[in-house]
Amino acid sequence: MSLVLHNFFRSSASVRVRAALNLKGLAHEHVSYVLRQKEHQSDAYLKLNPQGLVPALQLDDGTVLGQSLAIIEYLDETHPEPALLPQDPLDRARVRSLAQAVACDIHPVNNLRVLQYLGQELKISEAGVADWFRHWVDQGFAPLEQQLAGDTRRGKFCHGDTPGLADLCLFAQIANNRRFDVDMSRYPTLQAIFEHCLQLPAFVDALPENHPHAG
Amino acid sequence: MSLVLHNFFRSSASVRVRAALNLKGLAHEHVSYVLRQKEHQSDAYLKLNPQGLVPALQLDDGTVLGQSLAIIEYLDETHPEPALLPQDPLDRARVRSLAQAVACDIHPVNNLRVLQYLGQELKISEAGVADWFRHWVDQGFAPLEQQLAGDTRRGKFCHGDTPGLADLCLFAQIANNRRFDVDMSRYPTLQAIFEHCLQLPAFVDALPENHPHAG
Repeated sequence: MSLVLHNFFRSSASVRVRAALNLKGLAHEHVSYVLRQKEHQSDAYLKLNPQGLVPALQLDDGTVLGQSLAIIEYLDETHPEPALLPQDPLDRARVRSLAQAVACDIHPVNNLRVLQYLGQELKISEAGVADWFRHWVDQGFAPLEQQLAGDTRRGKFCHGDTPGLADLCLFAQIANNRRFDVDMSRYPTLQAIFEHCLQLPAFVDALPENHPHAG
Repeated sequence: MSLVLHNFFRSSASVRVRAALNLKGLAHEHVSYVLRQKEHQSDAYLKLNPQGLVPALQLDDGTVLGQSLAIIEYLDETHPEPALLPQDPLDRARVRSLAQAVACDIHPVNNLRVLQYLGQELKISEAGVADWFRHWVDQGFAPLEQQLAGDTRRGKFCHGDTPGLADLCLFAQIANNRRFDVDMSRYPTLQAIFEHCLQLPAFVDALPENHPHAG
């Protein structure tokens, strides 16, 4: 299978999918889109992915899949090993819920286009935009820290000792946080999971600064 | 199974889960939380759901599941009929991607707590907040309309002629839009799907105005 990932080195949702592809051992090429230059809104890209967002995964038959969580679940269903979700429905709900606490409640509110709207349309200062970013991270991370710290199902990772869907989302968010000086000392459990991820090349290679088109 | 849904009549994510429970024919009780009065941030509720968000589904053994999409996938895995996701992995990815286009890219940015932050912290006017709401709906609905209008996999609903995960999210969003005068005439395909949903009691009963604790 020849996979092409349409993505941007700094995009948090792209980081999730890059790490998932790496964990599955799936070779892929990159096509990059500079979001600030609106390359993801070009006619050529909109033909591939009408939603005009990155990442999108193009399969060898030309099919294009959008939305990072949908892509990762597809990869998990078609390439079951190593599993990114546990088998038991309750455990799956737990992992998906942790993933969505980041992917639905933190990241979308702090996406580049939202931050741009705050600055350009609403004339919020740079400091105000940074406060916004940290506010939503803290709103999400404080309960996540509490939830994970006291949960015996947590291991090195969110669910046991192997990385999965929730870790992909958490890892990408914490990597993204670095641009806004989020104080991670309040979230020792989340930070420990991030550091366990950093011991795996699949995650390290997915970091923005290690993207072949970073810059 | 005795199910308790912790929710709020007007919450869009709660509408999704209520309609899913109805489609599955699963009886459930409601416990309601008035979000503007921060009842979902009470100590009692945080013990049940540390994330402090609605909806959450409490199972008969006391287990509490958070995050609407995770809850709906759990219901689909444990009560397979009628299916809310198709069987084929590519089709599943398509439906999840459509669902997430709403649940990750529109709804979180327009959530009550975000609108409150705009008004209370950033002093954005009521009209400015309404513009914000419509902007993000339009950013998401315009490509979704284009994507669905030209797709032969669409039927009465997003995927064929039976309702599923994507319809739950779309239905809840369009119901929510009514509070902000979103002009749906630009989205005839999405509107038609909404109207097909309205022919089913499972969806009608899930509407905010039909909630037993509406008011």
